[in-house]
Amino acid sequence: MSLTAEEKLRVVHQLDALGVHIVEAGFPASNPKEQELFELLSRETLGVSEIAAFGMTRRRGTPASADEGLRVLADSFAPICTLVGKSSLMQVETVVRTTPEENISMIGESVDFLVRQGKRVIFDAEHFFDGYALSRGYAIDTLRAASLAGAERIVLCDTNGGSLPGQVRAVFEAVRLEMADVELGIHTHDDAGCAVANTLVAVEAGATQVQGTINGIGERTGNANLVTIIADLQLKMGFAILPPEHLARLTETAHLLDELLNRYPNPSQPYVGKHAFAHKAGLHTAAVRADAATFEHVDPALVGNSRDVLVSELAGRGTVMEKAAEAGIELDEEAAARTLERVKELEHAGFQFEAADGSFELLMRQEAGVYQPLFMLLSWRVIVEKRFDLEEGPYAETEATIKLVAPPGPEEEEYICTAEGNGPVNALDKALRQAIGDIYPHLRDIDLVNFKVRILDEAHGTGAITRVLIDATDGKRVWGSIGVSRNVIEASWDALVDSLEVGVQSQTRTTKA
Amino acid sequence: MSLTAEEKLRVVHQLDALGVHIVEAGFPASNPKEQELFELLSRETLGVSEIAAFGMTRRRGTPASADEGLRVLADSFAPICTLVGKSSLMQVETVVRTTPEENISMIGESVDFLVRQGKRVIFDAEHFFDGYALSRGYAIDTLRAASLAGAERIVLCDTNGGSLPGQVRAVFEAVRLEMADVELGIHTHDDAGCAVANTLVAVEAGATQVQGTINGIGERTGNANLVTIIADLQLKMGFAILPPEHLARLTETAHLLDELLNRYPNPSQPYVGKHAFAHKAGLHTAAVRADAATFEHVDPALVGNSRDVLVSELAGRGTVMEKAAEAGIELDEEAAARTLERVKELEHAGFQFEAADGSFELLMRQEAGVYQPLFMLLSWRVIVEKRFDLEEGPYAETEATIKLVAPPGPEEEEYICTAEGNGPVNALDKALRQAIGDIYPHLRDIDLVNFKVRILDEAHGTGAITRVLIDATDGKRVWGSIGVSRNVIEASWDALVDSLEVGVQSQTRTTKA
Repeated sequence: MSLTAEEKLRVVHQLDALGVHIVEAGFPASNPKEQELFELLSRETLGVSEIAAFGMTRRRGTPASADEGLRVLADSFAPICTLVGKSSLMQVETVVRTTPEENISMIGESVDFLVRQGKRVIFDAEHFFDGYALSRGYAIDTLRAASLAGAERIVLCDTNGGSLPGQVRAVFEAVRLEMADVELGIHTHDDAGCAVANTLVAVEAGATQVQGTINGIGERTGNANLVTIIADLQLKMGFAILPPEHLARLTETAHLLDELLNRYPNPSQPYVGKHAFAHKAGLHTAAVRADAATFEHVDPALVGNSRDVLVSELAGRGTVMEKAAEAGIELDEEAAARTLERVKELEHAGFQFEAADGSFELLMRQEAGVYQPLFMLLSWRVIVEKRFDLEEGPYAETEATIKLVAPPGPEEEEYICTAEGNGPVNALDKALRQAIGDIYPHLRDIDLVNFKVRILDEAHGTGAITRVLIDATDGKRVWGSIGVSRNVIEASWDALVDSLEVGVQSQTRTTKA
Repeated sequence: MSLTAEEKLRVVHQLDALGVHIVEAGFPASNPKEQELFELLSRETLGVSEIAAFGMTRRRGTPASADEGLRVLADSFAPICTLVGKSSLMQVETVVRTTPEENISMIGESVDFLVRQGKRVIFDAEHFFDGYALSRGYAIDTLRAASLAGAERIVLCDTNGGSLPGQVRAVFEAVRLEMADVELGIHTHDDAGCAVANTLVAVEAGATQVQGTINGIGERTGNANLVTIIADLQLKMGFAILPPEHLARLTETAHLLDELLNRYPNPSQPYVGKHAFAHKAGLHTAAVRADAATFEHVDPALVGNSRDVLVSELAGRGTVMEKAAEAGIELDEEAAARTLERVKELEHAGFQFEAADGSFELLMRQEAGVYQPLFMLLSWRVIVEKRFDLEEGPYAETEATIKLVAPPGPEEEEYICTAEGNGPVNALDKALRQAIGDIYPHLRDIDLVNFKVRILDEAHGTGAITRVLIDATDGKRVWGSIGVSRNVIEASWDALVDSLEVGVQSQTRTTKA
């Protein structure tokens, strides 16, 4: 994860607040950033979480006490060490290039060294499932070496991520039988799309530790997604791993990670995604309201998420009023009815509010009488030219000019601004921000993060109605806006203006609150 | 899925080429678009795939023969009907609001009616797993009713998606025991992050049909992802469900769907994602080279993906030469290699040829030396203006001027044409056709049927690189073209010109043949 030490510290505190028992913070000296993180962590007070340092078994031919990596672990403040070692004969031969016996010694002596240094050691048996398939006896021997040397827990790792639940269950049960007195854990990857399930079947087979990452962030197809696993274990399998009020921080935790990593949160993520509890309005929604259990596998509030009723022609007043309350808008029944009327008219004209919650919020504001336009447009003009330069070859230039009056009220002034851009919408965006950026400084925090164009009546090709969807964010939330027109630039302009208005108006609300 | 009928047809052909046995194409009359799709499908010849129509059991209180929905299914050309009915007592009471007995009759009579009409019926037992937990006997009774009435297969559905593999396995095994003579299927959703695993354990427990969607596209957190499941079943569990050479189309199929839906392909998707077989440089990559099995759970080529940075789905020269032959272009090995080189370069710049077969065809023509430009562009200019008329209110006007020389050769002439349009691309299209329409009369037969815009680097909003995809048709076939630029109008122009050139050039070929 490309996070700064401070950001990682924030993540650690969030995981602590959630109730995660062990946070593995990396190798304490793989680079200055990691060193800084461990220095910071050594001074922090945490509630539930304990910090683990990550490292590898000693190098071949080096005594454990002389191994630099192990020394760093021993010197670290972290009370727990996660030590990774090879459990697959093929890995030992092809990657470590040593004898099976030496690998066993590397595991035993490394664990022993750290235990003698006062550390609690968790042994990660790398490539265990592949190794077990290849040479069952040897794979088990590596576990025994770690256990005999004092590792408090042995974690079976599906490092290549290719195992399926049936396999994981069978292998895990077999290992349990052979090592009944040892605490086992599970570490999976999602290469076969089964990381979560593999973890769950291992827990059913007796695993008492689960390793994974928030949102399944990880190499290739990702690690086991702890967000999903925590909810499954607690809400479906009856394990009280977190206090219930902590479980409600799950959605917030998932989104914080995405925000720090500058990723767009996956709307389809189980439990915490924006669409995880989305229902199309209509009969379906009526059923959900009648008895949520008919269409929801769990109560979204338990994981800090909420039901998202997608607004469409079929929506009722109740839905609209719920949405208004969420957005902090006071909307009475009549205004809700008027909003619905307008939604119907607009949907008939090609609008679609399911992905345009921002534009829908503006509609509600208008009907509630709390809408304030940012400016009054007089005109705009966009010119795109493609020419050839004898030396430079073909090039395109875009220029937008906007004439408007702002802010609405006695202090209004006229502005004419021209900007160049990479394309018409970009140029319009720049010219508009140039005109009103000083009046509304919050505009600087608003980024357009996604821009989608769809032709509604495809049979008419470029002559048909165009629907433009823009997603914008101010770093705290993401909202969608929509514009519909025969002209793609006009549709884009409408969506652009909505994007900025939603950002500024919702910020005003926050200030008032 | 918000696809046009033509796009859905393209998906059907792709699924057919992949080897999917049954393609459920929706309810044949829920709206004009669905009707059109079924009309188109009734005229298509497919290799492997059979078409299923989707519907619900009869309404309560209506005889099956008088039920409008069932009549539509009976009248449809589709040989198979997927009929969904309630298996959960709670659903029967809260949603259908009828008696348990009436629901059983609804199931039995509906299946019976369709079977008598000569249809093969697949019964989807909705909310089966929840229903089974609530009232085991009743849930089984609903299955029996469908089976006795002649349904050829009974599909157990985890409609709310909240079941875990342990549960699914136990319930599926119990149902198998009770109904040993019945073919069973499985239909899961990903609300607990286990859709793929739940499907796999059901297959282990005897399911002979799997329902799912490409890339897991579906409401809420999505359906079972067929892409992952197909690879798991074939490569891990030993089921020969597709010929191996078809399995290699998995990546292409997954990406085509994303392109058509204007979604960014998930780079972490198992098997087919760009990062699915990516390895960090260093020891790791060396290990992979030493023996791929050390760090790769399967050979990426088996699913049409590739190791490290995914360059192109067009894995080798052989594929390119096949594609050329399909398009009637003579392309030797060297030209195929050059084409691949250019594809790599262009993909690096943001091009993507999976949904742009037309632009790819032009690339091959260029490398084969049989490419003939329609004209030589001197310049173009587009002006979009938004103004207010005191009487008419706001209005937008678009005007495009093009200056070009055509046709290439001794008879070339200069043309300057100006046209108004509904938007910039429409105006450019009109001005261009005005200029060269008389030279290439076949242009009149070419319609632009779809126009898609995608921002490649979403973090830069309207300032990022834009990829435009245009689908065009001459009434006989549909082809895709691509343009990539920082400027959406320039990207659109490039895709537009490709669209028209492909249409004219392939027509030339047809004339020659």
